[in-house]
Amino acid sequence: MASCGAFHSFLFEYDTPRIVLIRSRKVGLINRGVQLAILAYVIGWVFLWQKGYQETDSVVSSVTTKVKGVTLTNTSTLGARIWDVADYVIPPQGENTVFVMTNVILTLNQSQGRCPELPDDKTECQVKNNSCFPGYVSTHSNGIQTGECVSYNSSIKTCEVLAWCPVEDDSHIPKPAFLQAAENFTLLVKNNIWYRKFNFSKRNILPTINSTYLKNCIYDARTDPFCPIFRLGQIVEAAGQDFQEMAVEGGVMALQINWDCNLDRAASHCVPKYSFRRLDNKDTAHTVSPGYNFRFAKYYKNSDGTESRTLVKAFGIRFHIVVFGKAGKFDVIPTMINIGSGLALFGVATVLCDIVVLYCMKKRYYYREKKYKYVEDYELVSISGGRGKADLLPSLSLERF
Amino acid sequence: MASCGAFHSFLFEYDTPRIVLIRSRKVGLINRGVQLAILAYVIGWVFLWQKGYQETDSVVSSVTTKVKGVTLTNTSTLGARIWDVADYVIPPQGENTVFVMTNVILTLNQSQGRCPELPDDKTECQVKNNSCFPGYVSTHSNGIQTGECVSYNSSIKTCEVLAWCPVEDDSHIPKPAFLQAAENFTLLVKNNIWYRKFNFSKRNILPTINSTYLKNCIYDARTDPFCPIFRLGQIVEAAGQDFQEMAVEGGVMALQINWDCNLDRAASHCVPKYSFRRLDNKDTAHTVSPGYNFRFAKYYKNSDGTESRTLVKAFGIRFHIVVFGKAGKFDVIPTMINIGSGLALFGVATVLCDIVVLYCMKKRYYYREKKYKYVEDYELVSISGGRGKADLLPSLSLERF
Amino acid sequence: MASCGAFHSFLFEYDTPRIVLIRSRKVGLINRGVQLAILAYVIGWVFLWQKGYQETDSVVSSVTTKVKGVTLTNTSTLGARIWDVADYVIPPQGENTVFVMTNVILTLNQSQGRCPELPDDKTECQVKNNSCFPGYVSTHSNGIQTGECVSYNSSIKTCEVLAWCPVEDDSHIPKPAFLQAAENFTLLVKNNIWYRKFNFSKRNILPTINSTYLKNCIYDARTDPFCPIFRLGQIVEAAGQDFQEMAVEGGVMALQINWDCNLDRAASHCVPKYSFRRLDNKDTAHTVSPGYNFRFAKYYKNSDGTESRTLVKAFGIRFHIVVFGKAGKFDVIPTMINIGSGLALFGVATVLCDIVVLYCMKKRYYYREKKYKYVEDYELVSISGGRGKADLLPSLSLERF
Repeated sequence: MASCGAFHSFLFEYDTPRIVLIRSRKVGLINRGVQLAILAYVIGWVFLWQKGYQETDSVVSSVTTKVKGVTLTNTSTLGARIWDVADYVIPPQGENTVFVMTNVILTLNQSQGRCPELPDDKTECQVKNNSCFPGYVSTHSNGIQTGECVSYNSSIKTCEVLAWCPVEDDSHIPKPAFLQAAENFTLLVKNNIWYRKFNFSKRNILPTINSTYLKNCIYDARTDPFCPIFRLGQIVEAAGQDFQEMAVEGGVMALQINWDCNLDRAASHCVPKYSFRRLDNKDTAHTVSPGYNFRFAKYYKNSDGTESRTLVKAFGIRFHIVVFGKAGKFDVIPTMINIGSGLALFGVATVLCDIVVLYCMKKRYYYREKKYKYVEDYELVSISGGRGKADLLPSLSLERF
Repeated sequence: MASCGAFHSFLFEYDTPRIVLIRSRKVGLINRGVQLAILAYVIGWVFLWQKGYQETDSVVSSVTTKVKGVTLTNTSTLGARIWDVADYVIPPQGENTVFVMTNVILTLNQSQGRCPELPDDKTECQVKNNSCFPGYVSTHSNGIQTGECVSYNSSIKTCEVLAWCPVEDDSHIPKPAFLQAAENFTLLVKNNIWYRKFNFSKRNILPTINSTYLKNCIYDARTDPFCPIFRLGQIVEAAGQDFQEMAVEGGVMALQINWDCNLDRAASHCVPKYSFRRLDNKDTAHTVSPGYNFRFAKYYKNSDGTESRTLVKAFGIRFHIVVFGKAGKFDVIPTMINIGSGLALFGVATVLCDIVVLYCMKKRYYYREKKYKYVEDYELVSISGGRGKADLLPSLSLERF
Repeated sequence: MASCGAFHSFLFEYDTPRIVLIRSRKVGLINRGVQLAILAYVIGWVFLWQKGYQETDSVVSSVTTKVKGVTLTNTSTLGARIWDVADYVIPPQGENTVFVMTNVILTLNQSQGRCPELPDDKTECQVKNNSCFPGYVSTHSNGIQTGECVSYNSSIKTCEVLAWCPVEDDSHIPKPAFLQAAENFTLLVKNNIWYRKFNFSKRNILPTINSTYLKNCIYDARTDPFCPIFRLGQIVEAAGQDFQEMAVEGGVMALQINWDCNLDRAASHCVPKYSFRRLDNKDTAHTVSPGYNFRFAKYYKNSDGTESRTLVKAFGIRFHIVVFGKAGKFDVIPTMINIGSGLALFGVATVLCDIVVLYCMKKRYYYREKKYKYVEDYELVSISGGRGKADLLPSLSLERF
């Protein structure tokens, strides 16, 4: 039988487990209760809440930015001076970042030469016992020491250095910030996202918005949540910071664009959500060079052909446009995986109830005997077994045939 | 028995469900059919198609680019002028982006001073009823108003501003584009990718390619799919755009590199696929400052020591090199998860067939009675219990034979 | 019967499969063994090793960098010259990358004009049979040919070009590198990461570190693993490269920051791990323009108002700060999915043992008959079936009790 009609029987036989059906309110209710809990979890939590039926993809994004605004400063060294985009946005274009200079230390007319180093505990010196060493250079020095000890000013003497002279003195940072008006500059963010798996792409300038609106709108979480133009001051305040304080030493801000979308719904429901965070560490105790700044130079050629430069130590706010998001769309694979594991969990219900029925209940022995059929490995011994007996008769009877 | 030899029995007993084996072509076939369908789904779809047996990782990438090309322009203001890489690639290096200037509005010899604002509905004025306010500045203004009303040209009067003078007039964009020859410039893209989970890294310059080929090849989807050198015009056309049209106002292009790899196969099968998309919004109705442009300045020092600058409004095409990809490699975890859920699904087959057998078939009562053994909570009643009886009779009736 | 009390019975009945309990050391042990293996796999591998109970998220990061250092060069053309950050870091700020110039080819005082092209097989010419074509330009040419053939030097004649003259001669790269001292420059990396799903953010400057330490520390894998200041030479060596060799033609390095975190543990355990890799292709056979370099220009205005520029071909090392990481935190969904599939796998144990019991063992027929109850589709035949009978007896025998 196992050999000959094996395939035939395989194909035309149907095997289903034999079931003991126990009529007991207690157990019945426990059983259904557990099953219900599992069902609720699988449907409610896994499917409805966690959208376990969806395939997900993360966003691919590209960003371009544009800053607008102009301000006037008036200082003894520079006189009245207008600052526009070309002056305070450095570099003129970034990828996902844009830097707006809010404060600056200018060192005009630097040229290659010899001059006294900036005074600090290492560089100060007396002429008699010379503490300057030719060729000495440290991480923080502005140039290479010549070994001379020259007067930095009437009172202090410092080691002479080969450097761009005069050396920059960044000990005093202008306060309030030099370009405090930057608070009212505006930042236009153009963001294009793409969910590759679903070949779904969209822009943060929604098709429902017309250009006249865009020309004049300013983002506001309540009134204009989809306007892509931001007031710098607003961004900083939205992150719970004080712009004027931040403007002095500079800082790093994140402008976050959240593109979480449920693509089972209409594409028009997939809209950007903006949020703002400060990224750099405020407390100066646990950081080096607090805030954010960097140096660059403008190079000039003098009429006599020699080169000079203006060294700019630019403090300012760097805006990172951080784009993230997850899109979900119905897919058969995750659905099946979750259904599969859900079904498997139903097994737990039976296991639990069996424990109750077979170990905790008064009638457990009675139930056990109904559920189990004991089969001894070797007959003779088994015969003595009371329960065994009930079981063995058939086999005996069979032998007779 | 439950107490004493519990462990002994636990260890040396094997419990397997008792099965009713129904010899019925119909049910048997249904059962096998459903099972087959499930098996086909699990193996065919989950494993073969979706590679459910693979652990996946997404790509980590780094990109460097290099543009080549030179062109000649001849205008009244500039005269004959050669433009090379240092002139039209701004900034000289980006991260994943490179910008090629295709059109430009130059404002030569700007210097700090007072001059009439660009005329528009807000800035035009008459001297008698003065509509200019000292210190007034708007988002779109080039400087800060002095309050004077001066003549912009013979016909028009506009408010005077403190600004970099003369102010830029970007009302007329050169058409055709100033550097239309950019169409034939070439872009070399070097891309290095890394799949961290599998510690697999590769470059888009394949080891099979030699340097002599690289010196002269130009990417072509059909003939040279692995040449990393692209003609700018080609990229734009491949995205279904017109280069010369795009060159005028600028735009943003994506050069996508797809690194999807099946790492169960040889590494040599893991090759980049290039594709091209336009990222910015063409229709001007739903966008601000269409195309792509930004401003920067070159600063000069005049012989008299005063500073002047050349303001450049650069229109051009910004190429984003977008690298994405997913690598898969056999891993035991996802395999087991999918097998597990697959097995669980087989339970469905039994459930379905039971429904058929126990509710839909003619002989359902007969089958039910074979499958189920009814156990009353309390014996006595159960005997009288209709259902209980129904249960016992058949066996009795059978006895008689 | 199926209709009336259906719901009542559904609610108050509990059905559990009937089990054949085989008392056999062999089968029992096999069964438990297989179950143990599966249990070990599920708990040990899936849960403990692969943390299958955790939801995971990948990192969102932002990076800022700062280079420090100054060096002196002394050449015939430039004389003694100091190079500081503003001179060798181009552009002054990047996003995740920073470029440090280590070698340079300067072409001073270029101006628009006509001059002989750089000699190569294409551009060399004789006056008699002129091989120069007006307007000809190739990818590698520095300008547009005028058609003239002029003498490049005493011996060689080349085609004349309209270009920035004199044209750059980059045939000889300075060796050793011009700014070889860059080896001792330091790179400060500030990195801020964010795990969005868990709203967990952290900086690579750990709160346990104070600013005095930061002022002076240098990263060292053993002694200072959390110092965010790196010696350039060290980075390159850690990647198994030679700095001075790399400095000549430039290259691309990755500074990798690994933020893998188990957020079920204290946040203080979540710390960055630094590692270093070279990204560009060393072997020159399979690459174009080996190393890393780019061109930019500094523009000057001469006293006579004409424009001139200094063309800089900057070779150098570009550092990509690559931040990656995966955070895991307990979550109910993946836990349930893994438990579910784990349970499902237990089914395998029964399947295996059944095969052993029913096909491999001596007593297989005996066991089969205990496990299976054969039910014919039509009764008459089934009655004659010995097995059918054998099966019914027990229910009788039980009745007698």
